[in-house]
Amino acid sequence: MTNEEFRKYGHQLIDWMADYFNNVDRLPVKSAVKPGEVIGRLPGKAPYEPEDFDAIMADFNEIILPGMTHWQHTGWHAYFTANNSYPSILAEMLTSTLGAQCMSWLTSPAATELEERVMKWLGEMIGLPGDFDGVIQDTASTATLVSLLTAREMASALEINKTGFYGQAPFTVYCSTEAHSSIERAVKIAGFGKDHLRKIPVDAAFAMKPGLLEEQIEKDIKRGLKPLAVVAALGTTGSTAVDPLDAIGKICKKYGLWLHVDAAWAGTALLLPEMRYMINGIENVDTFVFNPHKWMFVNFDCSAYFVKDKAALIRTFEILPEYLKTKEGTAVNNYRDWGIQLGRRFRALKLWFVIRSFGQKGLQQKVAGHIRWAKIFAEWVEEEQGFEILAPYPLATVCFRLKPSKLNDEKKINALNAAFLERINRTEKIFLTHTKLNGKYTIRFVVGQTRTELRHVEDAWVTIKSIGSELLRESKF
Amino acid sequence: MTNEEFRKYGHQLIDWMADYFNNVDRLPVKSAVKPGEVIGRLPGKAPYEPEDFDAIMADFNEIILPGMTHWQHTGWHAYFTANNSYPSILAEMLTSTLGAQCMSWLTSPAATELEERVMKWLGEMIGLPGDFDGVIQDTASTATLVSLLTAREMASALEINKTGFYGQAPFTVYCSTEAHSSIERAVKIAGFGKDHLRKIPVDAAFAMKPGLLEEQIEKDIKRGLKPLAVVAALGTTGSTAVDPLDAIGKICKKYGLWLHVDAAWAGTALLLPEMRYMINGIENVDTFVFNPHKWMFVNFDCSAYFVKDKAALIRTFEILPEYLKTKEGTAVNNYRDWGIQLGRRFRALKLWFVIRSFGQKGLQQKVAGHIRWAKIFAEWVEEEQGFEILAPYPLATVCFRLKPSKLNDEKKINALNAAFLERINRTEKIFLTHTKLNGKYTIRFVVGQTRTELRHVEDAWVTIKSIGSELLRESKF
Repeated sequence: MTNEEFRKYGHQLIDWMADYFNNVDRLPVKSAVKPGEVIGRLPGKAPYEPEDFDAIMADFNEIILPGMTHWQHTGWHAYFTANNSYPSILAEMLTSTLGAQCMSWLTSPAATELEERVMKWLGEMIGLPGDFDGVIQDTASTATLVSLLTAREMASALEINKTGFYGQAPFTVYCSTEAHSSIERAVKIAGFGKDHLRKIPVDAAFAMKPGLLEEQIEKDIKRGLKPLAVVAALGTTGSTAVDPLDAIGKICKKYGLWLHVDAAWAGTALLLPEMRYMINGIENVDTFVFNPHKWMFVNFDCSAYFVKDKAALIRTFEILPEYLKTKEGTAVNNYRDWGIQLGRRFRALKLWFVIRSFGQKGLQQKVAGHIRWAKIFAEWVEEEQGFEILAPYPLATVCFRLKPSKLNDEKKINALNAAFLERINRTEKIFLTHTKLNGKYTIRFVVGQTRTELRHVEDAWVTIKSIGSELLRESKF
Repeated sequence: MTNEEFRKYGHQLIDWMADYFNNVDRLPVKSAVKPGEVIGRLPGKAPYEPEDFDAIMADFNEIILPGMTHWQHTGWHAYFTANNSYPSILAEMLTSTLGAQCMSWLTSPAATELEERVMKWLGEMIGLPGDFDGVIQDTASTATLVSLLTAREMASALEINKTGFYGQAPFTVYCSTEAHSSIERAVKIAGFGKDHLRKIPVDAAFAMKPGLLEEQIEKDIKRGLKPLAVVAALGTTGSTAVDPLDAIGKICKKYGLWLHVDAAWAGTALLLPEMRYMINGIENVDTFVFNPHKWMFVNFDCSAYFVKDKAALIRTFEILPEYLKTKEGTAVNNYRDWGIQLGRRFRALKLWFVIRSFGQKGLQQKVAGHIRWAKIFAEWVEEEQGFEILAPYPLATVCFRLKPSKLNDEKKINALNAAFLERINRTEKIFLTHTKLNGKYTIRFVVGQTRTELRHVEDAWVTIKSIGSELLRESKF
């Protein structure tokens, strides 16, 4: 492809992209393809001769696009959002053009210094104290692993990095029963073993019970184990429950435990001062992660990881072979030593574009809207006969189900709600997913797509209500 | 930003991007900014009000661009390349627009099935046997960690995932003294301890000595340690040495060791049938990684990880909380269980665009050119008085230094070459980096930038030769 062709196809693609956002809401939000349908249409062998871009785009439109689930659809209410935005996409275009690999200051000084500055902005924007330094990770899974590894090395005086685990008492890690699966994965990778992950029971609001956390720590100490770290969730994946950070932090301080906060989705809400009650107790936190790529209009991937002791982080990961030595040495940030991967994309650019383009005001307005509309949705659900709210909704996620007044068999209620969700998603207009809370099949309604407005939430409720009523009539309860 | 504005700025950006490739060679390849210069020009506080895109782009051009080191410059001969290409950038534009999070089949069926198909293509394109399955990881650092974790879990029957390390004999891991620093990092993370990483000495070509590998394994067994895995390098980072895979594989088979191949840079050369001697012995390999984002014109990040036993990989990482359950279950690939991160970008798209746009033929021609030109460069160096080649050049990287005939003090020769490199890079026309081989300060010349042609290599040599001659005259040796 020549430079002229690139320019031509690039302009074509920009129109495709702008049109996509105008048209995506007319596409089925969740693809209806069957397993094997897409791969069956792709040739078994790679082409030997070069192919025209027009042919590739034609296949993209005909084969790939109908097989996509559209995360940027205004009817996206599933999982959590991974929302993008126009300024973020424009920044990604520059990032891919520059193609800089940002492992060291030297390999892209502006990328390093922009990351440092933008992460300072971001920390301040969400109310973190000034003593946190930030670095962009790819995902919260990675950030949580990085945090637990740092905790491990600080607790062992870097001894595990050096000689391995041998001869040490087992470390234990604590989170709530509602915490994210990435914590279990990190505990396995770090070599602690999932048997040493203590899942502390939650209260009626699905938040960790600090009293039980302390009991468990005491028990483990008595058994000769070494309590290492707590992972507190601000906004669990199931119901966006908020663990009591202040109480947990005091326990961590008392027993000398590391405290990591997983605010992957909910961190964005901290842009609003009225939501900062969630970080009461932040002074006892060691590390904190939230994902601007979930709810802050920054393209996936961009996970903001904040640490109080950057020296601890760097000492855990630093490696300096001859071929990576530069004369600037440690007078500059070399972010390759702030995590697992050596290679790094220039991800600070999209964060910068988004923050400047929206302004703090614009970001706050959008997020406040999402939270407000979710509450409105929840009120509609509460008022509707045969519907039930299953968890508090402190943020922009509502957990609910159908609950016919005369049906009390939980198994049957679960089956009814699985059918309910299936039927909702079959409309192809909105997409919701489920979880289980106290064994109850729970439908989650997440508001957070970039272009979703109150009217989309209203439309969604009309659909959900009418399918629900239909099912209630059919089921005769 | 409205849809109309996005369209307008998008078109402006396409012209910026096409112009960038026309102009980048006139920019200094390595930025001359001093530490702190960029950050000093960025406001200390995030803006409250939204800002115009024009203002953001103006700052990008004035503050960020002069602080970038230009990896896509035709004078890039440093580290390894992280080359991009026009079709890859176009694909990245679509990826960021769709903004799909590809953790499960359900969350983007086409992305999952395209990844499966394209990775099969890629395996075949580089001559891997058909029994390898592929998955895209972000970097080779991650892939190597994933491989060693899989080895750990297979050797312990998933016991370390379950209960941790406690009570087990230490595992040992083997690589050459020239292997990449990411192996040491992975060994630390996995909990083996770097003291249990055995760096096996290399021969005159900087390739691992298999005899010494076997001796070390024997020694470790006698000590009661548990030899776990070997990481063989095809193309070390220092000098692109090729470890003897066949001999290493036989030793692994004999002792029941896991074998991972790190071909991060050199894997792309396997597109050429004449280079496949490097994978003689592939039948004993468990996992294999190479980075299309280094030398195969695919934007960073895109690391191709191939495994012979995908069940082993999945059993190591799988976790299935309620909120991730889908009715397709394990009848489809859910790539979230093929590695560390839960969240995944749609990276298969750029690989597909690049393979189809270049065709296997186009890819082979470009890579063959790079290898040929590097050999021509090496011949020029060899013929030049006062220059010395320091390692074989099986691929497209040449290791050399200045060696005045009358200067034999290695310390002084090293200092001379450090000054030489500094002066080369000060031209701002080309960018080279160094390593050390047998204690000798070694300058590396890597050919592999997408748009680099023989004439650029010629220009680079004219510059290098004249600076070298100048230094030789000045130093009076």
